Amino acid sequence: MREIALVGAALLLAAEAGIAAPVRNEPIQPIEPAVVTDPAKVELGKQLFFDPRLSKSGFISCNSCHNLSMGGSDNLPTSVGHNWQAGPINSPTVLNSSMNIAQFWDGRAADLKEQAGGPIENPMEMASSHTLAVDVLQSIPQYRASFAAIYGDETITIDEVTDAIAAFEETLVTPNSRFDQWLRGDDSALTKVELEGYELFKSTGCTACHNGPAAGGNSFQKMGLVEPYVTDNPAEGVAGLTGNDIDRFKFKVPTLRNVALTYPYFHDGAYWELEKAVDVMARLQLGRKLAQEEIDKIVAFLHTLTGEQPTFQMPILPPSTNDTPRPKPFE
Amino acid sequence: MREIALVGAALLLAAEAGIAAPVRNEPIQPIEPAVVTDPAKVELGKQLFFDPRLSKSGFISCNSCHNLSMGGSDNLPTSVGHNWQAGPINSPTVLNSSMNIAQFWDGRAADLKEQAGGPIENPMEMASSHTLAVDVLQSIPQYRASFAAIYGDETITIDEVTDAIAAFEETLVTPNSRFDQWLRGDDSALTKVELEGYELFKSTGCTACHNGPAAGGNSFQKMGLVEPYVTDNPAEGVAGLTGNDIDRFKFKVPTLRNVALTYPYFHDGAYWELEKAVDVMARLQLGRKLAQEEIDKIVAFLHTLTGEQPTFQMPILPPSTNDTPRPKPFE
Repeated sequence: MREIALVGAALLLAAEAGIAAPVRNEPIQPIEPAVVTDPAKVELGKQLFFDPRLSKSGFISCNSCHNLSMGGSDNLPTSVGHNWQAGPINSPTVLNSSMNIAQFWDGRAADLKEQAGGPIENPMEMASSHTLAVDVLQSIPQYRASFAAIYGDETITIDEVTDAIAAFEETLVTPNSRFDQWLRGDDSALTKVELEGYELFKSTGCTACHNGPAAGGNSFQKMGLVEPYVTDNPAEGVAGLTGNDIDRFKFKVPTLRNVALTYPYFHDGAYWELEKAVDVMARLQLGRKLAQEEIDKIVAFLHTLTGEQPTFQMPILPPSTNDTPRPKPFE
Repeated sequence: MREIALVGAALLLAAEAGIAAPVRNEPIQPIEPAVVTDPAKVELGKQLFFDPRLSKSGFISCNSCHNLSMGGSDNLPTSVGHNWQAGPINSPTVLNSSMNIAQFWDGRAADLKEQAGGPIENPMEMASSHTLAVDVLQSIPQYRASFAAIYGDETITIDEVTDAIAAFEETLVTPNSRFDQWLRGDDSALTKVELEGYELFKSTGCTACHNGPAAGGNSFQKMGLVEPYVTDNPAEGVAGLTGNDIDRFKFKVPTLRNVALTYPYFHDGAYWELEKAVDVMARLQLGRKLAQEEIDKIVAFLHTLTGEQPTFQMPILPPSTNDTPRPKPFE
């Protein structure tokens, strides 16, 4: 009794002193809050993230498909792109994406900065070009001033554009989920069923891939390891980059952080219900047919991975000028 | 000298006591800040305004075409609707729209509440139906709870949906522009050129239609009064409602508040430059060919009508459930 009291007092002192409490030794670790070192760059990145003038149409922004009101995703099987083209693959959430081993489902971009340049010039997505996007920004005095203040020069480059967007995206983490509260020692943060779900999640083998702070995002795995995954979606995964048959259907393991918000699931967005996604994963990846009660418990656990969503002021974008290249939504 | 000092002291005392200073007697009056009487309803309305699930595709929200990062407009000649259809007319700004005599360019909706129902079920815009939109909201427990708290019943109606959206839109006013500061007595708020622009704006006759707090929005006028307005846009204006030839090209006078942000101009969005819009208006409506110097001064004045943009936290939307009707972006 006395020892418990002493430990409790020590934890209290540690908390008061700002010393982190010991974290439970589990395959998933807590998400750390964002540390903003350059608020001006983050603010510029936020403006760019919300600015549809980075698209040819003037209608699509980063936030269109990575909607920060909706778990950093668009909640569609595949995204709507320029001229209403159906995107080839499900938009992954931008939340906690800085923790990914690489970006895109096939990992073809090394980091967020490299990723940010892709959709801008993808004819199926924003359908602009890096030159045009920079010309648009360069024509707007407030943007020129922001870039000059951060990068020391009024001449804007695409490298700076993607750097600022990445800086904003790095702040889009979701700490303090109920699961993280439990990881940090709060036994009351999870219900009995949720905790049983977590134990099942581990004993079934899910943590083999869904581990680390993001509960995923840190490895590439074959979709359909034990049983093949049946889909109409033509995406090849890493094989599309390497040309190696062994990499066919190898995708980056998605984060399970905020998974209750980022439906529909898998690279083709074919499954809307978390229950079905869990069933499919257990069967195809682990060769396990889970009972409905087990699935429900795991789903209850997965809901505890919803963290504090990034909240911020909606940005006010600087207006275009007479020199700004005009959007071409219908050309 | 002593009298001026006394007046100054009196104004100072009035300001300290929260008594409004006398407003200059001008055809345009200041915008009053929003008074929020039901913050829960406004917050719900904000969520709905940003929720793309009110559209068939799950991709288009009110904010898509009335983007609060961009002057409450989309800065496109006509809007992008469901399946990338080109809208029939320029999206008017939602900012200060509560001051409009009626809503839409032809005034076919009496107020914001009636307006809000239109785009949801317009097959060219959000392409949903009132029934489907309500079914979506009804399937989401957090929405049910919000509606119940405000309207006393968990059964959501389209009437409540549009009422909440209108309540949010009523807060979207832009007070304290430099022109309003001048109207309230601050002589230093406008430059000499801007003030000359305002005097020209009045002497040219612009205030005949662009008057009141919104500098417009309070009457219907024929577009092309002295000279005809040439456009490819088939919109008929009020004649489309009345069938009367005399109402052809009769449109609601748009507000000039934040006009520097709400390009391109006129019901067809055909003019991107404020200078050209002023030139066209003076010629077609007033039979006046303005000199370039006069145009530039009026444009300088118009820039002073940009007020404080509404700033607020980006809403976090409650997630869909397994019972939520799914979006159909590509059907």
